[in-house]
Amino acid sequence: MFVLVNLKAYPCDPVEIGAAAETVAAETGARIAVAPQAADLRAVAETGVETWAQHVSPVEHGSHTGSTLAERAAAAGAEGTLLNHSEKRLRLADIDDAVGAAERAGLDTVVCANNPAQVGAVAQLSPDAVAVEPPELIGTGTPVSQADPDVVRAAVDAASAVGDVPVYCGAGISTGDDVAAARDLGADGVLLASGVAKADDPEAALRDLVTDS
Amino acid sequence: MFVLVNLKAYPCDPVEIGAAAETVAAETGARIAVAPQAADLRAVAETGVETWAQHVSPVEHGSHTGSTLAERAAAAGAEGTLLNHSEKRLRLADIDDAVGAAERAGLDTVVCANNPAQVGAVAQLSPDAVAVEPPELIGTGTPVSQADPDVVRAAVDAASAVGDVPVYCGAGISTGDDVAAARDLGADGVLLASGVAKADDPEAALRDLVTDS
Amino acid sequence: MFVLVNLKAYPCDPVEIGAAAETVAAETGARIAVAPQAADLRAVAETGVETWAQHVSPVEHGSHTGSTLAERAAAAGAEGTLLNHSEKRLRLADIDDAVGAAERAGLDTVVCANNPAQVGAVAQLSPDAVAVEPPELIGTGTPVSQADPDVVRAAVDAASAVGDVPVYCGAGISTGDDVAAARDLGADGVLLASGVAKADDPEAALRDLVTDS
Amino acid sequence: MFVLVNLKAYPCDPVEIGAAAETVAAETGARIAVAPQAADLRAVAETGVETWAQHVSPVEHGSHTGSTLAERAAAAGAEGTLLNHSEKRLRLADIDDAVGAAERAGLDTVVCANNPAQVGAVAQLSPDAVAVEPPELIGTGTPVSQADPDVVRAAVDAASAVGDVPVYCGAGISTGDDVAAARDLGADGVLLASGVAKADDPEAALRDLVTDS
Repeated sequence: MFVLVNLKAYPCDPVEIGAAAETVAAETGARIAVAPQAADLRAVAETGVETWAQHVSPVEHGSHTGSTLAERAAAAGAEGTLLNHSEKRLRLADIDDAVGAAERAGLDTVVCANNPAQVGAVAQLSPDAVAVEPPELIGTGTPVSQADPDVVRAAVDAASAVGDVPVYCGAGISTGDDVAAARDLGADGVLLASGVAKADDPEAALRDLVTDS
Repeated sequence: MFVLVNLKAYPCDPVEIGAAAETVAAETGARIAVAPQAADLRAVAETGVETWAQHVSPVEHGSHTGSTLAERAAAAGAEGTLLNHSEKRLRLADIDDAVGAAERAGLDTVVCANNPAQVGAVAQLSPDAVAVEPPELIGTGTPVSQADPDVVRAAVDAASAVGDVPVYCGAGISTGDDVAAARDLGADGVLLASGVAKADDPEAALRDLVTDS
Repeated sequence: MFVLVNLKAYPCDPVEIGAAAETVAAETGARIAVAPQAADLRAVAETGVETWAQHVSPVEHGSHTGSTLAERAAAAGAEGTLLNHSEKRLRLADIDDAVGAAERAGLDTVVCANNPAQVGAVAQLSPDAVAVEPPELIGTGTPVSQADPDVVRAAVDAASAVGDVPVYCGAGISTGDDVAAARDLGADGVLLASGVAKADDPEAALRDLVTDS
Repeated sequence: MFVLVNLKAYPCDPVEIGAAAETVAAETGARIAVAPQAADLRAVAETGVETWAQHVSPVEHGSHTGSTLAERAAAAGAEGTLLNHSEKRLRLADIDDAVGAAERAGLDTVVCANNPAQVGAVAQLSPDAVAVEPPELIGTGTPVSQADPDVVRAAVDAASAVGDVPVYCGAGISTGDDVAAARDLGADGVLLASGVAKADDPEAALRDLVTDS
């Protein structure tokens, strides 16, 4: 199970969480990645943890101001990127272009979707993985694997129908039991955010997450 | 073959073109629809021609200003709507919601896409049809069926792999030969715009389009 | 006092409200305009009431799909347009272009803003009027003139500092007393929506609005 | 004269240009800042040069994915930020919020505008400076100070009418003569991009820029 921690714009210390994730990953052999804001990619990557961008722009080199080029995210140390998170929804054509941009730059991609139909749609664009995150469950503390297990199963089916695309699930994940439940539903990983970023002890929260997974 | 004429924001008379399309459709038995701007839906529908919206909003009734609700497009006489045209690209989640909104209002949907991969993606969202329009060919006068026949064939394959979804093609279509070529490549219809909207004699242009189709 | 009724995407009958507004305006001599969705402009204008668009696109004639050209809003019977409503916020450059587009088409413009600083900003773009609508008060039923009278006064000052630009205010307006209070604070008109569009008896609601103004 | 070099998404080495700018600034006493992409802020700031963001998000800490919080740009070493560049146009309300966000984080702000009317508008939002960059001249090599000196003069007048807001100008600036011409028209600084970022010898280009200013 891949555990991808999205730090969003939370008032946390991204380096502290990156270092905690690296410690837990090294101890347990679990695969954990941390996705800070673009401005923090370099500092987080320097902790040694697997570092992801929260988003990269669909454009190539050129006259673009205020974008995050996949190439520069990679140069700062990112190994992958989220795309189309429900808080950063993209136009379909831009998802397509951003997956291509990430690939050119050597970044792995996880394209997010709100429901199984959208999972099927984004799976057509050849990302490395897809993620299903029902927006209404984000930040609730109720794990998607418990609140709506059928949405996870249906997402796995939708991705399988398109090809051999790994499926992650997110929204409300915060414990090792949630991770195990996601795995039992066919997911290959989990996305989470506040469960770690807002934890009093992020390292303990991460250790709990991967213990049973 | 379905012929869908997008009037865009061209400086044409939408009612004159609607009436011409209705005349040619009645004479030839061809299915022709005209898609004016939202403000012209009612006047065009009154000509008796099959009338389509160029876009409807992904929202339901509520506190939304400046939107075009599917229900109001239908009330003005629209029978269908384009969605995600390359000049009105939508976020993936909004395509999903707009298809649902159109369905609730009884509108047919054609969701546009730039390439076969995106055709496969939008076909997953259960529209009534999909359309492939390579943006680089729009307005060129070189028909997609001639400039890039493989993109039409690949789009038909991508849609077939998802389900029994009709495929239209567009970009550069202006003659009956172009329509016939599109049909021979497996398309069920064509999208066009300037070929009719900017024609000196729209009725003659329409008659030429449907003569060989 | 100008009373501008934004029908938003509420599930009301726009023609019924247009006719009611025309009746009340004729009886009382009050200036009342109704702003339906683009698809309803023509039907509302046929009631004889002063009809406004909720939004027009910043573009000119050309290859634009899904836009509402100022020229077509005017052709459908609109006499003016809202711009930059808090539910349809525009980029600054697009407000500038849309004011120009409306002017070319002979439409009056009211550019909305969230606060006095933004009122000062939009007043620089030479609209016919500006409107201040604190987003947090929209739809509350608590009139801005009562909840935050200083914001209305400050908006009037900001507009005056730029030039002789009329100021309307909105959010929570529903009675004639609210309209009178707005006038006493220096406003030249009011924007309202649910107070009329969701009223059991829109004509009575309108009559109450203009009785004391 | 303040020289602000926007590296956009050009395929340059941001650290090399940062170091060159720091060298030239130290030698000449000129004020030069470099604005890389967010992912490069930290590495550029470590060269010692005055470092600016190309954009920051209008939001505060919270559940926002893919944003660049002003606080994180500052933590990475940024001292200021461009806002509303013509390649990253913002909604008016978002310019207002982003100026506030930058201020909270201790970043200087330069808000860009396409023409003098928009300069007047953004000056109302209390940025530290405004910049006028006619989009049609960006990247042309023809300096705005020569192609359209009146637009610089009018921008200075528009900003002065609002308050004591410094005005920078951009588009086509590449030599010390261009900088001197801008100063003579009343500008307090210049924005440039390709003239340095695409130069064979960025340090020589920078030295030439500040020699006569």
